[in-house]
Amino acid sequence: MITPKKIVEELEPYVPGRSIEEIASEYGVDPDKVVKLGSNENPMGPSPKAVEAIKENLNLINQYPESNLDGLVKKIAEYAGVSSSNVITGGDGADEILDVLGKTFIEPGDEFIVPLPSYMYYEFTLNIHGGVPVFARWDMEKNTLDVDSVIKALSPKTKLIFLCTPNNPTGGLIDKKDIKTVLESTDALVIVDEAYFEFSGVNNVELLESHDNLFILRTFSKVMGLAGMRIGYGISNPQIISYMYRMKPVFSLTKLSQIAASATLDDKDYIKRSTELSVKSRDFLYSEMSKFDNLKVYESKSNYILVGTRKTGMKARKLTEELMKKGFIVRDCTSFRALDEYWIRVSVGTIEEDKKFIEALKDIIG
Amino acid sequence: MITPKKIVEELEPYVPGRSIEEIASEYGVDPDKVVKLGSNENPMGPSPKAVEAIKENLNLINQYPESNLDGLVKKIAEYAGVSSSNVITGGDGADEILDVLGKTFIEPGDEFIVPLPSYMYYEFTLNIHGGVPVFARWDMEKNTLDVDSVIKALSPKTKLIFLCTPNNPTGGLIDKKDIKTVLESTDALVIVDEAYFEFSGVNNVELLESHDNLFILRTFSKVMGLAGMRIGYGISNPQIISYMYRMKPVFSLTKLSQIAASATLDDKDYIKRSTELSVKSRDFLYSEMSKFDNLKVYESKSNYILVGTRKTGMKARKLTEELMKKGFIVRDCTSFRALDEYWIRVSVGTIEEDKKFIEALKDIIG
Repeated sequence: MITPKKIVEELEPYVPGRSIEEIASEYGVDPDKVVKLGSNENPMGPSPKAVEAIKENLNLINQYPESNLDGLVKKIAEYAGVSSSNVITGGDGADEILDVLGKTFIEPGDEFIVPLPSYMYYEFTLNIHGGVPVFARWDMEKNTLDVDSVIKALSPKTKLIFLCTPNNPTGGLIDKKDIKTVLESTDALVIVDEAYFEFSGVNNVELLESHDNLFILRTFSKVMGLAGMRIGYGISNPQIISYMYRMKPVFSLTKLSQIAASATLDDKDYIKRSTELSVKSRDFLYSEMSKFDNLKVYESKSNYILVGTRKTGMKARKLTEELMKKGFIVRDCTSFRALDEYWIRVSVGTIEEDKKFIEALKDIIG
Repeated sequence: MITPKKIVEELEPYVPGRSIEEIASEYGVDPDKVVKLGSNENPMGPSPKAVEAIKENLNLINQYPESNLDGLVKKIAEYAGVSSSNVITGGDGADEILDVLGKTFIEPGDEFIVPLPSYMYYEFTLNIHGGVPVFARWDMEKNTLDVDSVIKALSPKTKLIFLCTPNNPTGGLIDKKDIKTVLESTDALVIVDEAYFEFSGVNNVELLESHDNLFILRTFSKVMGLAGMRIGYGISNPQIISYMYRMKPVFSLTKLSQIAASATLDDKDYIKRSTELSVKSRDFLYSEMSKFDNLKVYESKSNYILVGTRKTGMKARKLTEELMKKGFIVRDCTSFRALDEYWIRVSVGTIEEDKKFIEALKDIIG
């Protein structure tokens, strides 16, 4: 029989957050009562305008999506404050954009730099294209990038550098001057992952004009409330964008996803309220969790909070299990490279959900 | 600035069929009156049960899809008459499965065989992974595979062989004995593309048991009426399937797509009626188009018909333009390798749409 590529057997599978259906059936909990604080979704639910727009177009799902995404691209460009020629959008959230980066730039043996801990999907996706990960360091004390570690990791083989800000799962920001330092130290493409930028109030779009090796990665899965619809986008100079469009799958964004993304961008009020709720909820969760003297709680600029559980004596696996039994899903971070077995990531819920979660936490480790 | 992979500038972009919105705005036609016979979609529209199921789940689109697709896989396996361990499903129709085949098996320089003319996306996708196309021959006289041309194209570098049956765009079937001949001549993986098998009444699942290098590729975009939702699946031996799952994107199938696919598989009556309508409409279209003595009309076992326009003196581009002005979209096949500028592909519509189309055709070339 045909043998697969070598990487197929070497690759560590990506471990996704777990779904309500899985947990409910495994722990015998009522699915309607499960609170999901595991995947950094929008606790408000989707924009009602997106839901309405989908409903109006359901009779069209037998037709292929538009391959011409100009309309959506224009709206994204307006939202981001750039030109349409700076934008690429596609299906599968930001994950497809990552895959297209691999398809466009990575040949077997090329290197990509990832500070640790960070989003694990970079490594999963780029490995498939034969990329070799080179790890830099996230400064856990200061909860920011150790920029020197990135500079030291550079080599002539470096093709892509990933800077996640706010960083998943630690929640800290990367200083703009550190991003500039990286941009100016290399010709490699610097992917600034702004999946969660709305919750931080800062972004790095202004650096586009002066740096043609900047690529900003974003998603509709967080504040836009469309994780289930799988829409992502990237912002860079028109040359990079046009290279990538040549390699992108033609029809990967579903018809309903296009419609939902467009309608959500039109719903400014929803975006504003979603951001405000998550920020308020984050600050509440931070303050409440900080009261546990056996938890190490990281300050976050995003819609999740990283929590160290070592002092509770409970590994993340055990604690997440106890929480699941009470109907709460949080992210066990054991599969995150450079974190040990004592870390969980808690996504913000509604304030009501947060309160119930804190009660459950008290029962288990209080 | 970073340079892309060599293939990025060499790759011929895939030319998709055109959408109603594009045509309508370009030719100033009322979009509601455009009849789309260009992309082999289901003219009946989606299953009402799929539409209903989507409606009931719209409040969940802020949540990530299930990464565990066991429920859908089980239903697909039942539909196909195989075990769950034989099935892989994913997003972006069959196109993602093709991409995952590339990710799993193709290293730069590996060869894949495509008889011409056939579905152009094989080449587009595998090229991205560094695959080298080797072309075999579709026998246009007999409208079937020239099996000897495939055998001659085999080399030690052959990794994948594509056999499309019914073949897109010619509509002819490949004889089961010819598929067996190919399977038995090589260790390479033989991808039998059965995207349109329902319209032909035959499939090749029975060969799975005796041939571990068979991979059957299918889609929900045709008889299942879900082209806009982007769902595909593959059937092979469990070892191939498990290799591929390791390389597959985790969340690429949207939540609503999973739900729609499941509901459609439950709607046996819809699948039956869709098949019957398309077969009836195909036979009607064939008989009506055969009356034009300046058209070369191919007999088809699928839901489209290949038509040569040379005797009309009109290139496909001109004829499709004239049809668009009258509100009909058909596929200009000029971008299909091994077809010249004188071919169009007409998808079956409802009988009523077919009749209007024939009238339009009479006005132009009658």
